[in-house]
Amino acid sequence: MKNGFHCMGKAERFSPFHSLSPLMCTFFQVSNGLAISLLCAIFGLLYAVYLIRWILKSPSGNDRMREIAEAIQLGAKAYLNRQIMSVGSIAVIIFALVWWGRGLESGVGFLVGAICSLAAGYIGMNVAVRANVRTTQAATISPRSALRVAFNGGAITGLLVVGLALLSVGFMFLAVKCLTPDPADAVRCALDALIGTALGSSLISVFARLGGGIYTKAADVGADLVGKIESKLDEDDPRNPATIADNVGDNVGDCAGMAADVFETYAVSLIGAILIGSLTASGASAESALIYPFLVGGVSVISAMVGIFFVNLINAAPARALQGGVLVSTLLSAAIFWPLTQTLFPNGVAITGKGDCSASSIFFASLIGLVMTYVVLLITHYYTSTDHKPVRLIAQASETGHATNIISGLATGLHATALPVAFIGIAIFLSYHFAGLYGIAVAVMAMLSMSGIIIALDAFGPITDNAGGIAVMAGLDKNVRETTDDLDAIGNTMKAVTKGYAIASAGLAALVLFGSYVEELKMAYERLGKHFNLAFDLQDPNVIIGLFIGGGLPFIFSAFSMDAVGKAAGAVVKEVRRQLTAKPGILEGRDVPDYGTCVDIVTKAALREMIVPAILPVIVVIAVAWAPFFGPKVLGGVLVGTIVTGLFIGIAMTSSGGAWDNAKKFIELGNHGGKGSHAHAASVTGDTVGDPYKDTAGPAVNPMIKVVNIVAILIIPVFIKLWIAN
Amino acid sequence: MKNGFHCMGKAERFSPFHSLSPLMCTFFQVSNGLAISLLCAIFGLLYAVYLIRWILKSPSGNDRMREIAEAIQLGAKAYLNRQIMSVGSIAVIIFALVWWGRGLESGVGFLVGAICSLAAGYIGMNVAVRANVRTTQAATISPRSALRVAFNGGAITGLLVVGLALLSVGFMFLAVKCLTPDPADAVRCALDALIGTALGSSLISVFARLGGGIYTKAADVGADLVGKIESKLDEDDPRNPATIADNVGDNVGDCAGMAADVFETYAVSLIGAILIGSLTASGASAESALIYPFLVGGVSVISAMVGIFFVNLINAAPARALQGGVLVSTLLSAAIFWPLTQTLFPNGVAITGKGDCSASSIFFASLIGLVMTYVVLLITHYYTSTDHKPVRLIAQASETGHATNIISGLATGLHATALPVAFIGIAIFLSYHFAGLYGIAVAVMAMLSMSGIIIALDAFGPITDNAGGIAVMAGLDKNVRETTDDLDAIGNTMKAVTKGYAIASAGLAALVLFGSYVEELKMAYERLGKHFNLAFDLQDPNVIIGLFIGGGLPFIFSAFSMDAVGKAAGAVVKEVRRQLTAKPGILEGRDVPDYGTCVDIVTKAALREMIVPAILPVIVVIAVAWAPFFGPKVLGGVLVGTIVTGLFIGIAMTSSGGAWDNAKKFIELGNHGGKGSHAHAASVTGDTVGDPYKDTAGPAVNPMIKVVNIVAILIIPVFIKLWIAN
Repeated sequence: MKNGFHCMGKAERFSPFHSLSPLMCTFFQVSNGLAISLLCAIFGLLYAVYLIRWILKSPSGNDRMREIAEAIQLGAKAYLNRQIMSVGSIAVIIFALVWWGRGLESGVGFLVGAICSLAAGYIGMNVAVRANVRTTQAATISPRSALRVAFNGGAITGLLVVGLALLSVGFMFLAVKCLTPDPADAVRCALDALIGTALGSSLISVFARLGGGIYTKAADVGADLVGKIESKLDEDDPRNPATIADNVGDNVGDCAGMAADVFETYAVSLIGAILIGSLTASGASAESALIYPFLVGGVSVISAMVGIFFVNLINAAPARALQGGVLVSTLLSAAIFWPLTQTLFPNGVAITGKGDCSASSIFFASLIGLVMTYVVLLITHYYTSTDHKPVRLIAQASETGHATNIISGLATGLHATALPVAFIGIAIFLSYHFAGLYGIAVAVMAMLSMSGIIIALDAFGPITDNAGGIAVMAGLDKNVRETTDDLDAIGNTMKAVTKGYAIASAGLAALVLFGSYVEELKMAYERLGKHFNLAFDLQDPNVIIGLFIGGGLPFIFSAFSMDAVGKAAGAVVKEVRRQLTAKPGILEGRDVPDYGTCVDIVTKAALREMIVPAILPVIVVIAVAWAPFFGPKVLGGVLVGTIVTGLFIGIAMTSSGGAWDNAKKFIELGNHGGKGSHAHAASVTGDTVGDPYKDTAGPAVNPMIKVVNIVAILIIPVFIKLWIAN
Repeated sequence: MKNGFHCMGKAERFSPFHSLSPLMCTFFQVSNGLAISLLCAIFGLLYAVYLIRWILKSPSGNDRMREIAEAIQLGAKAYLNRQIMSVGSIAVIIFALVWWGRGLESGVGFLVGAICSLAAGYIGMNVAVRANVRTTQAATISPRSALRVAFNGGAITGLLVVGLALLSVGFMFLAVKCLTPDPADAVRCALDALIGTALGSSLISVFARLGGGIYTKAADVGADLVGKIESKLDEDDPRNPATIADNVGDNVGDCAGMAADVFETYAVSLIGAILIGSLTASGASAESALIYPFLVGGVSVISAMVGIFFVNLINAAPARALQGGVLVSTLLSAAIFWPLTQTLFPNGVAITGKGDCSASSIFFASLIGLVMTYVVLLITHYYTSTDHKPVRLIAQASETGHATNIISGLATGLHATALPVAFIGIAIFLSYHFAGLYGIAVAVMAMLSMSGIIIALDAFGPITDNAGGIAVMAGLDKNVRETTDDLDAIGNTMKAVTKGYAIASAGLAALVLFGSYVEELKMAYERLGKHFNLAFDLQDPNVIIGLFIGGGLPFIFSAFSMDAVGKAAGAVVKEVRRQLTAKPGILEGRDVPDYGTCVDIVTKAALREMIVPAILPVIVVIAVAWAPFFGPKVLGGVLVGTIVTGLFIGIAMTSSGGAWDNAKKFIELGNHGGKGSHAHAASVTGDTVGDPYKDTAGPAVNPMIKVVNIVAILIIPVFIKLWIAN
């Protein structure tokens, strides 16, 4: 296996293969490890294709249901197409800049990252908007078949994300490495290209998370404010002109946005791990250190497939079945990691700043990642599910009014930061103890390798949510809605829980990127013949200033995102009011509302409002790099500052939001007076405040902290001479 | 002047004065500079005594008014006495620990700091609860006389704070220095004692801020929830059993708590500046570097007196008069700082890590502090006053309901962090540029030197608030309440603005403390004959773990504080409901409610609930220091992490709270439907959520971030051997 990575060895510099054709190398010389990993990814994608065909073959209900589903499909597609157009123009500019600043391979890498990130979301969403109506139809038969359709719909997105991420990163790596004429430069060029790929996926995911997040919450809040509160309509009432937009939002936000986000975290963690591996590993197994992250990912695609298969097979309560699937996947991965590590690192590996690390050390580092996945899921579950004290206290606080509900929810979010961050600290400590910076990178990659099955849980949410909407709009029997509601409640908890996973893994991934920033900086100094003696010391006011600037970014970023939801929701409110005034027959069921204009308005508003917050972090990083008195130290401070406050804000916001949501659900189950009580009204307020918290600002912080770090890595060659001159 | 600081010079080691009596030295050998500064402090205190007599001589209204005022006085006194008892027992334990760990002088220093911090709040509050009724009486004559009484009442607290802080720190410094037998150790011992003083004042101020903050908001929220919302009573209606407790709360929270808080920031900044001066300044003017912070403080006592005099003299609109007073003080201080600096540093001073700094450089550093005071006041004013966009947008968002009001207010708080932190960054950059770490310390001290006049503005708020309450409860003419309401509105904006000042200066002061931590650590290593080569580098996972732990502290701390308000308010709600049910005549005005039990309940609840959040930071710091795998690096990360997130959380919370408060006021002025409209109901929700934000959690973060830093400095000698062994 160690002999596999032929392209890299300097001994092969004059290998006859290179004289044949650079591309041949891809096919004949690829490392067995990398090949296995890419094969796993392809298996995953094939399984996704199989599931797509299975979903499409499922019955899609009556004409009315199909009609509604089609409206949702059209709206979602229209939004994503326009998003591609507006992000596309920005992407072209950035592509040109990356090409100019970092060379063609980084530029192409950028495009590959951007396109695959988009594709994962796009295909996943297209499946989801077909799975929803089929879930409704299946719910007319049995809860179990509804669960299967919805879960498999989500599983497709999960498999697409991990499969495409592994494939795009692996392919870029191989292609550039083998196309580089001078093999001495090959790995370096390939890594450069991967940094481009990381930026491409991060940038798309910021836009997708923000745009989707603004869309879904503007439609939701807008529909609620006029529909539910002013006109006393029920959720998903077809007389509400914003109801289709609301259902579209679930798909573009919770499905496409989330898929792009996790795709990005996955790709970036993988790239970060490869970068750190190439920069810190040396000795006989140095090449293995590059392949190991790929294999961790590849192996886990197979475990995710087994997990998905398990959920389809087992006959248990839905929540138990889903949890069982995750458990099976995790255990299987852990079991395969052991022989994998022993084979790849028979004599261990030397890591800069850490010395020799045994295969077992590397294995333990990856185990930490798997354990962290579980720990974060459990903690977030504690703070956001109706089974535990925090949510019940919020529900109880709702009895004394809107304000106490809000205070209690805000406090819960703040409390919820303690344990995840403490465990992240422990994970950093232990994985660094086992294998230095590379250990942290391996732990992050192992944590992310679980995302195939975890996204399946997450994407399950919007499908069941939509299924319920279609049931109401199509006027199906009440027990169909009850079945989908039961699944939706599980979906809500799963969504909250996976958000904790997403932000925790994003924080860790960003730390790996900061490590890469420092290593890249070192190399840039050395290339110019300068000795690197930068310390990012807290005693240095430059570092403190950087920490303050960076620490402020997540605050300002979420402020802008929340404003954006407010503005876009305002546009929806106006349109709904206009329609209800112009056609009073709508409320009486005599006139049909014009769903299309609402979809159109919220599409435009979301795309307009996402620009400022999405561009902000990029501009700040470039401004800091360029500012005459600042330099790489301040920039280093910015990177870490963003990670520290971003992690806390992200966890606090998503936890508060999830807890408010479920406190409302808990009251609706009949507690504290149930639906229609004062406590319920207060809990609706909390839920609405939680909407932009948990679905827009909070999750968008994930890609944002990584964009900041990747842009910093990317601009090193552009600014290095300026920095050295200052 | 340079010859003045005789106790310190090694040449005088065998000075005949020492053979006479150590105490004689205090009186004969004190540096002229220090003497001048202490004289200024004494002048300030004398002026405060004069103002107290002036206030007490003012007419105190009719019997009913006096009766109500007495009830408030009794309640406030009872609370503070009990607070002294419960904090006293903790203080005795800590005194013993400090004595054991750091020697008797630190122990005595701790007591002096604790007692003076308490005294400033205690006396100030006792004056405020007498000024309130006299303000009501003056309001029956003219708005101008009401302004004078209320402002002078606040000015007393301001003068007490700065006078006592200067005097206690100066006296401790002199006393220990001159009582130390070996003059070579004298300054070192004196500084050790001052670290004790810093801890004493910080600890008291955490308790005072938290206890007072929980008290005031629990009483306020409790009174509102049952009184206003359930029973439809007006603010300060005497039929509300919690109304006296609410008025007591204004005094113990906004007056005593705030005074202890700023006393602490002042004392700690002064001590930090002296520490940094002694640790980094060298050469001919090294002694001047120790005296300069004292003189900056002393000079500004005089300018504060002039400013207070100016407000009393000038005949302008209240807001203009107050702003004029601040301007006069600032300009006067700036004008005196110039000759002062030139006299003290005729040949500049050498600063470690910076080289020679001219007198002008030191002057510019102090100028930065004065400018920062103004900048922070202006920015906070923009975000929290009814004249500008942010508050008006919140008011507008209230039209669409509770949730949009909350979202808008939360976003405003997040936005409000950007500019102050940016300017703090600029201030750090420039003052470091001028005179290294000492420059930052000087800038902070100059900023704090303005607190005499600024507290006068702040303490003015609770007095006018109380005055309005007394007017309503005593059934005075409506125009009296209108007069006090006008003043109260100004007081509200002033309170919000000075909170921005308090947190910004606290953040900077804490940074100076972090600098002291590193310098102290260095010295501790050197004393044990070890070379200090610790770097707090962001590449080191220990530092990152520290940043995460420290970054989490303000989040958890504010979560606990908000919970505390919720629990204490719950106790009030129960008691008010009990009284209204037991005696239905209360609401009809036939029965008199039992105000005393409400006061009693909220007193007990506040004291009980403050313990956990107040002790938390101390325990975390000690735990990190003691943890087997951690050490001074992780601890350093904790200190900086706490400062970074604490600053953002503090600014966001106080700004959101102030903005919500004034958005309600703006609606009550008749905008967006005025009182009684849906928008008004939503704005009341925002105001209630803002209460614990702006008056409990947010401001309590100030002393908390300093407690963390001081405890770390204090425990260095205790843990240094353990750290070196690890």
